[in-house]
Amino acid sequence: MLTINEHRFRAHFEALTRLGATDDGGLDRPTFSDAHLDARRGFRELIENAGFACRVDGAGNHSAFFSCGVPGAKTLLFGSHLDSVPQGGRFDGALGVAAAFEVLETLRDAGVPLAVHLEVIDFTDEEGSWVALMGSRALAGVLRPRDLDNPRGQGEAFQEALARASLTTDSILAATRPPETLAGYLEIHIEQGTRLEVSQTDIGIVTEMVGIWMYYVTFTGRADHAGTTSMHDRLDAAQGAAAFTLAVRRVAMADFPNCVANVSQMAVTPGAFNIVPETVVVHLELRGSETEGVERLEAALADEAARAAEAFGLQVDFQFLEAVYPTPMDERMQRALEDGAEGLGLSHRRLPSLAGHDAQSMARICPAGMLFVPSVGGFSHSPREFTAWQDCVNGANTLLHAVLHLATRAG
Amino acid sequence: MLTINEHRFRAHFEALTRLGATDDGGLDRPTFSDAHLDARRGFRELIENAGFACRVDGAGNHSAFFSCGVPGAKTLLFGSHLDSVPQGGRFDGALGVAAAFEVLETLRDAGVPLAVHLEVIDFTDEEGSWVALMGSRALAGVLRPRDLDNPRGQGEAFQEALARASLTTDSILAATRPPETLAGYLEIHIEQGTRLEVSQTDIGIVTEMVGIWMYYVTFTGRADHAGTTSMHDRLDAAQGAAAFTLAVRRVAMADFPNCVANVSQMAVTPGAFNIVPETVVVHLELRGSETEGVERLEAALADEAARAAEAFGLQVDFQFLEAVYPTPMDERMQRALEDGAEGLGLSHRRLPSLAGHDAQSMARICPAGMLFVPSVGGFSHSPREFTAWQDCVNGANTLLHAVLHLATRAG
Repeated sequence: MLTINEHRFRAHFEALTRLGATDDGGLDRPTFSDAHLDARRGFRELIENAGFACRVDGAGNHSAFFSCGVPGAKTLLFGSHLDSVPQGGRFDGALGVAAAFEVLETLRDAGVPLAVHLEVIDFTDEEGSWVALMGSRALAGVLRPRDLDNPRGQGEAFQEALARASLTTDSILAATRPPETLAGYLEIHIEQGTRLEVSQTDIGIVTEMVGIWMYYVTFTGRADHAGTTSMHDRLDAAQGAAAFTLAVRRVAMADFPNCVANVSQMAVTPGAFNIVPETVVVHLELRGSETEGVERLEAALADEAARAAEAFGLQVDFQFLEAVYPTPMDERMQRALEDGAEGLGLSHRRLPSLAGHDAQSMARICPAGMLFVPSVGGFSHSPREFTAWQDCVNGANTLLHAVLHLATRAG
Repeated sequence: MLTINEHRFRAHFEALTRLGATDDGGLDRPTFSDAHLDARRGFRELIENAGFACRVDGAGNHSAFFSCGVPGAKTLLFGSHLDSVPQGGRFDGALGVAAAFEVLETLRDAGVPLAVHLEVIDFTDEEGSWVALMGSRALAGVLRPRDLDNPRGQGEAFQEALARASLTTDSILAATRPPETLAGYLEIHIEQGTRLEVSQTDIGIVTEMVGIWMYYVTFTGRADHAGTTSMHDRLDAAQGAAAFTLAVRRVAMADFPNCVANVSQMAVTPGAFNIVPETVVVHLELRGSETEGVERLEAALADEAARAAEAFGLQVDFQFLEAVYPTPMDERMQRALEDGAEGLGLSHRRLPSLAGHDAQSMARICPAGMLFVPSVGGFSHSPREFTAWQDCVNGANTLLHAVLHLATRAG
């Protein structure tokens, strides 16, 4: 049975995580930082040294291209990203690029006849140092000009960063690929959670990317003198916000096992020690793989907000900000990954991805699939991020067999 | 029985609250604003037109001086302040100056032989637009040079403001009065709370200024991905902060009727929608008239903070920042005010002041006393601030008789 070259894979992974490595075992490689641009140069050298064609598109996406030699054939893309969050880990993204590249070398070396071209891609700015999923959204044609206007309020710095990478906003927006040229997209990534570890499962087959809903929940009371106003007379917005914040976790855990909820800010106005809080804006994010489930959670939390407001004599405004709706992965892709794991004797389970990934951009224009390998302790976006090497190998082999299956059959 | 001239008192009050009046019935007269400087000019004119000597000291405190003609006599000070918080009310401070001035005119006109000089004072910046209680602290010699270094982080603007008022930091620090020249200090002020209104009491005799204790209570968990980290695996600092914020109010109300407690900030880091809160710094203020009671409340809340941290797997740091300890009012002054109210047939009760006032600076160097009149609804620092005119008159007459008592006896 065909398997990847573990030793070579390890060398690729080490090479692709050397630049930007931090002393504590992490990786600090925000998009267009010197370390990130150096890492991309390293990837181009890896591609060329291995004898593949190197492509760089207008969005800065880098890829290794291997033609199947069949005129008019489609291209099967697989890969991930080489950028990291600041002070992040070594596995998030880089593992997917290294594994994809190793799969490409293995297939090329095996001389398997292919029905589609293969392309291993490193997408630009998956983490959103500037614009989340920028490269994959540009390629998929779902990036809008206004997304590039003033990313993170740093329009000027963004233009300077683009110049360092020899890109322009025009070149990014022109990086779209015709969907009819694509056979599909596959990606291997660390889970960044503990579901695989807890269930002692080797491989996670991603069923969909969860949707993400964001809200401002504003409690309004009355700003009073915090010394002279009796406790009974206060309309204290902080009390409503606190009661609501506790309810968010309690309700999500009690009744919505398939959703997660996060209160990330409780912004108090006026905020002086000696003034009773007049308003608190609570920042709330909900995630879930089923829109209907999240909408029921939203309704339950709107009730909790009203209850918290009433308990303390406050007004409340539950304001929806924006949502990214759940993105299902392609069933045929899931099956190919599942069969790959099965054939290797690896345990596997289907599960939704609770984070966003480039595969959700790609799902807009072609069949997309994704597999997860276990994250020790679930840590991610941190130097503590770690995945056992055998799990990385298992993931790469699963990807290999899924690609083999898809690339040797249809187009 | 001697009483003030209600009509003249009303005219003084109207004159002293005209400049800086807002359309909604409030007063917008931060220290050294044009409106504040205009109001002080108006006060100087009032003093001179009434035939009193006008004194302005190096801290900008303005006063009307009336000599008793006795060589070496001490001076009995009484007054309040003409500055306001931004968008404040008309009664906070201005009522005290107008009432004091009316009492002075009444006593002068009555030709009562006096054993002490009388001086009606308008203190500079009681509200702390720049430095809280600046004028009275300067006069009492308890203002330190560093208090004037960079007030509110606006050192340059402060210097410009001082120049507009023809003051310098040196002149402010030189404005101390020798304690042996002072017979005492009295002040009439609105309560800014509802204790008098609720108990239907005409006059409050202030027993002490409450102490004010400030803390940072920091909850620390772990910043995790808010999508991929299961609800069970989170160490969410916002949950501890929320539970503690609710406990602050609950414990203060249940077991500490003589204290008030305020959570005025819940500052979350890192604060992004998709990251579980790592730290929340809760800003806490406690007030009470007995140090021992506040210290018991502090201990109870430190326990609550530990409990909240434990419930959510967090660390907690309960950090004391600073305290202004309770300042008792002079017993003889309280008795003089009480006797004044009693003689007028007014209901009265003793109660602590839950806010800071210039009387607490003055208590450092001479016997100080203070009386409150009812605030409708307890509103203050707001255009809704209101006190029925009869209550203002009652307060002025009480002050009159206390001054009469103190000024015609000892020195």
